[in-house]
Amino acid sequence: MKKIRAAIIGYGNIGRYVLEALQEAPDFEIAGIVRRNPEAQQPAELKDYPVVADAMQLDNVEVAILCTPTREVEKHARILLAEGINTVDSYDIHTGIADLRATLDPIAKAHGSVAIISAGWDPGSDSIVRALMQAAAPKGITYTNFGPGMSMGHTVAVKSKDGVKNALSMTIPLGTGIHRRMVYVELDGSKSIEEVAAAVKVDPYFSSDETHVMAVPSVDDVRDMGHGVNMVRKGVSGTTQNQRFEFNMSINNPALTAQILVGVARATMIERPGAYTMIEIPVIDMLFGDRDELIRHLV
Amino acid sequence: MKKIRAAIIGYGNIGRYVLEALQEAPDFEIAGIVRRNPEAQQPAELKDYPVVADAMQLDNVEVAILCTPTREVEKHARILLAEGINTVDSYDIHTGIADLRATLDPIAKAHGSVAIISAGWDPGSDSIVRALMQAAAPKGITYTNFGPGMSMGHTVAVKSKDGVKNALSMTIPLGTGIHRRMVYVELDGSKSIEEVAAAVKVDPYFSSDETHVMAVPSVDDVRDMGHGVNMVRKGVSGTTQNQRFEFNMSINNPALTAQILVGVARATMIERPGAYTMIEIPVIDMLFGDRDELIRHLV
Repeated sequence: MKKIRAAIIGYGNIGRYVLEALQEAPDFEIAGIVRRNPEAQQPAELKDYPVVADAMQLDNVEVAILCTPTREVEKHARILLAEGINTVDSYDIHTGIADLRATLDPIAKAHGSVAIISAGWDPGSDSIVRALMQAAAPKGITYTNFGPGMSMGHTVAVKSKDGVKNALSMTIPLGTGIHRRMVYVELDGSKSIEEVAAAVKVDPYFSSDETHVMAVPSVDDVRDMGHGVNMVRKGVSGTTQNQRFEFNMSINNPALTAQILVGVARATMIERPGAYTMIEIPVIDMLFGDRDELIRHLV
Repeated sequence: MKKIRAAIIGYGNIGRYVLEALQEAPDFEIAGIVRRNPEAQQPAELKDYPVVADAMQLDNVEVAILCTPTREVEKHARILLAEGINTVDSYDIHTGIADLRATLDPIAKAHGSVAIISAGWDPGSDSIVRALMQAAAPKGITYTNFGPGMSMGHTVAVKSKDGVKNALSMTIPLGTGIHRRMVYVELDGSKSIEEVAAAVKVDPYFSSDETHVMAVPSVDDVRDMGHGVNMVRKGVSGTTQNQRFEFNMSINNPALTAQILVGVARATMIERPGAYTMIEIPVIDMLFGDRDELIRHLV
């Protein structure tokens, strides 16, 4: 079997889990890992792979899995797509997704490459479930309830406050898309917890949610990477009211994101050139295995 | 807006709900309804539409929604696809789906038409969720638990027994894909309930499940069209164990089937010629609305 040659771009939390997911996937081989400091001492799990500063130094990369911060996704994708290399990413700024797609689509089409963007769990697999629920009951409301779990964006916002050495913002679902923010901070001694709490509560990330801020001796001691979602829709199929749908997950956050990235990396080998979100690709394209067998087993 | 012209083939339970779903869909117009006895008195809700014996008597049909018994789907689809008319159906014999697809695919390709088969909720929307759960955690087991709700196949099997005037077989979920069968029969007086129960329990439809058979004065009085599903998967993303996913529905069965059929009828206008199951088409293609807006709203 000809394997799909994938490169991992960025080796933080998501990159590590992508490495594991690629190692477990029967149809992939790892072309290498792109890091900012390839000359530095590398972790043991990378010893069998080239570690380079630029994807162009790797041989025959077919798809690049972008595990960079979200704001660096566009820059990397533009360059790689223009080289004819497919890209996947988990760009997660919901308001920027349609624009990123519009930006990358002509580049991919011009160079015969494929981008699948915003592929994680939300945006990502949750998006497919939301679209499916809307197809099943076109009129109605879908509520997406996140957590309990750590919110990256909110955590970064807290870390930026004066007096904060380290922070963790947990998202707690209260139903109907309303969330409580539980914020744990390690103080650096320059501000009191009351001062930090006041600064956090006026931040736009927190100002419209119920927010509790408390000091802890060590943020590392309270952090875990578990997360969850509960999506519910009550709607109308045709003229029939009260159709009810619910989707729940309880998962390791980066592990799921990485697995979805590997699935869409596989799908890039099938789609026509262009940029896509996950609701625009057939779910079967994410799966390893004989198509006819998958249909017999899953449909 | 140019509307999609759809014909309803067969006007039983599903056909009636398809009519409602088409009337509610902003982008469809109803070309007509195909029935066995078009000369008979038609129900009031059909007064504005042509009712004919053959789809070829209708003008400019773009997609035919097959609401016939499952075993008649192939016959109708073959004829319509060969005329260049797209077809959708809710063919629900799981073991026959891949073969039906293989049969219709070359016909559709030869005549520039599209078939989307086995489009209801199971097979159908559940299939998409099953495929998505497998993409999210490739190793693991998915259990599909049906009910409580009426099983068509089991009900027909009971009705075929001597001594049975009318019947209803309810499916009760016991978890891990195991189901109890609650069978309600209206006796015709020629057999005792014990004799009927014995005949039901040895039927292959029932012989491996816990089955309870009881007599009721009127089956109509206990029948409702509500149904449900609970799908659960516990699996592995990469090398991370214990990833948990759950999907639940509580729905009017024919109303949901009809709504899904209308969604895939819309999708037939987008896909390339050929025959597809629902896991092979992008979910967004089932939705009405501007694509960019849908992406902004749902992803």
